[in-house]
Amino acid sequence: MSDERELAELTRLVREFSTERDWQQFHDPKSVILALVGEVGELAELFQWIPADDAVPRFADEARRARAGEEIADVLVYLLRLADVLGVDIATATRRKLADSHRRFDPAVVRGTAPEKR
Amino acid sequence: MSDERELAELTRLVREFSTERDWQQFHDPKSVILALVGEVGELAELFQWIPADDAVPRFADEARRARAGEEIADVLVYLLRLADVLGVDIATATRRKLADSHRRFDPAVVRGTAPEKR
Amino acid sequence: MSDERELAELTRLVREFSTERDWQQFHDPKSVILALVGEVGELAELFQWIPADDAVPRFADEARRARAGEEIADVLVYLLRLADVLGVDIATATRRKLADSHRRFDPAVVRGTAPEKR
Amino acid sequence: MSDERELAELTRLVREFSTERDWQQFHDPKSVILALVGEVGELAELFQWIPADDAVPRFADEARRARAGEEIADVLVYLLRLADVLGVDIATATRRKLADSHRRFDPAVVRGTAPEKR
Repeated sequence: MSDERELAELTRLVREFSTERDWQQFHDPKSVILALVGEVGELAELFQWIPADDAVPRFADEARRARAGEEIADVLVYLLRLADVLGVDIATATRRKLADSHRRFDPAVVRGTAPEKR
Repeated sequence: MSDERELAELTRLVREFSTERDWQQFHDPKSVILALVGEVGELAELFQWIPADDAVPRFADEARRARAGEEIADVLVYLLRLADVLGVDIATATRRKLADSHRRFDPAVVRGTAPEKR
Repeated sequence: MSDERELAELTRLVREFSTERDWQQFHDPKSVILALVGEVGELAELFQWIPADDAVPRFADEARRARAGEEIADVLVYLLRLADVLGVDIATATRRKLADSHRRFDPAVVRGTAPEKR
Repeated sequence: MSDERELAELTRLVREFSTERDWQQFHDPKSVILALVGEVGELAELFQWIPADDAVPRFADEARRARAGEEIADVLVYLLRLADVLGVDIATATRRKLADSHRRFDPAVVRGTAPEKR
């Protein structure tokens, strides 16, 4: 177990938490995505009315930062659970995606310009 | 660097990717949350019309699983970026949240019952 | 005013509600979208752990249906607010979108088949 | 039919569109919410990297405003569909919610202050 990497470990902890409560029966992918959406909604609510420039300083306050951390953690928990029920290796998928983004977005071309969605 | 844990490493890789493109200027928390919402939307679209019971077998197909992995990775990338700009240690926040859930949801009480939101 | 159509009327009521509280200052589009995301999250949470086939019968219960109605209303309120601050005529946009969908999805071709997102 | 109000009419048009394609079979509430999340994601992507103060002027451009209108329409279409499958009268629910908000948020108390979510 000493070689277990962090995302695999957290995935296992979330799986064990679910199994101990016999909650894996509720964790079909669509349900887990809805739960993820619920947590993303709670995250959005923390920031919705704060002026954009003010968000970082406002959340420098320890209690608020901890509050944001809780909502971020909730999103991660469901994201790990989703990857797990789908048999997706989230660490590998993320490294692959980053490598792909390095290829797609050449700094010489995109520097300082936000890619626009249309 | 050999002691760097996985979430810290991925967070650093995402940060470096952003800095190399001078994109950190776009990464105020509200904007990053909107980008996260965009990726969650793409994830939802993959599953929306698939019967709930059919989602896991359908995504056992290698190409589809890779496709789901890409969207899950995109969500994780923005979640790491958000934690980073807020100064949240996502690994610590997640371990703390799991410990808290262990306390809140006693298996003897909640086993087999989905906690209902009202 | 007697010719005012329903979406225009509701848009006006939401605008007046905001103005009376001097809240229009918070209603830049990105903030309103985050508020919308928050309400979509609350809607998702109502359904997340309910078996897909069971959602309609479960929400036939009057109190639950009213609860779902509240969350649906919250989403609509922010959607109307967003359209209003952007100067989008939501009724016209929706009729146009439906006409466009009629053209894009020929019943003879798509009948009984969910369009798949890739 | 001449007395049909606008939201009821649009709800009926969306229902007929679905029935003509035999798509009502896919429209259980959880699936429709996931489709709604997909459209909210597309809406978020239009705005994600635009500076908050710049969003309204940027979308004053006719093509962009039409683009935002399309995404707003897509969200409304799925919201109407969801209300319909749940038997929720969205117009009544929205008027009730607004009346409730008038009671909860006294202008004399909340004027100029964004209610904070915790």
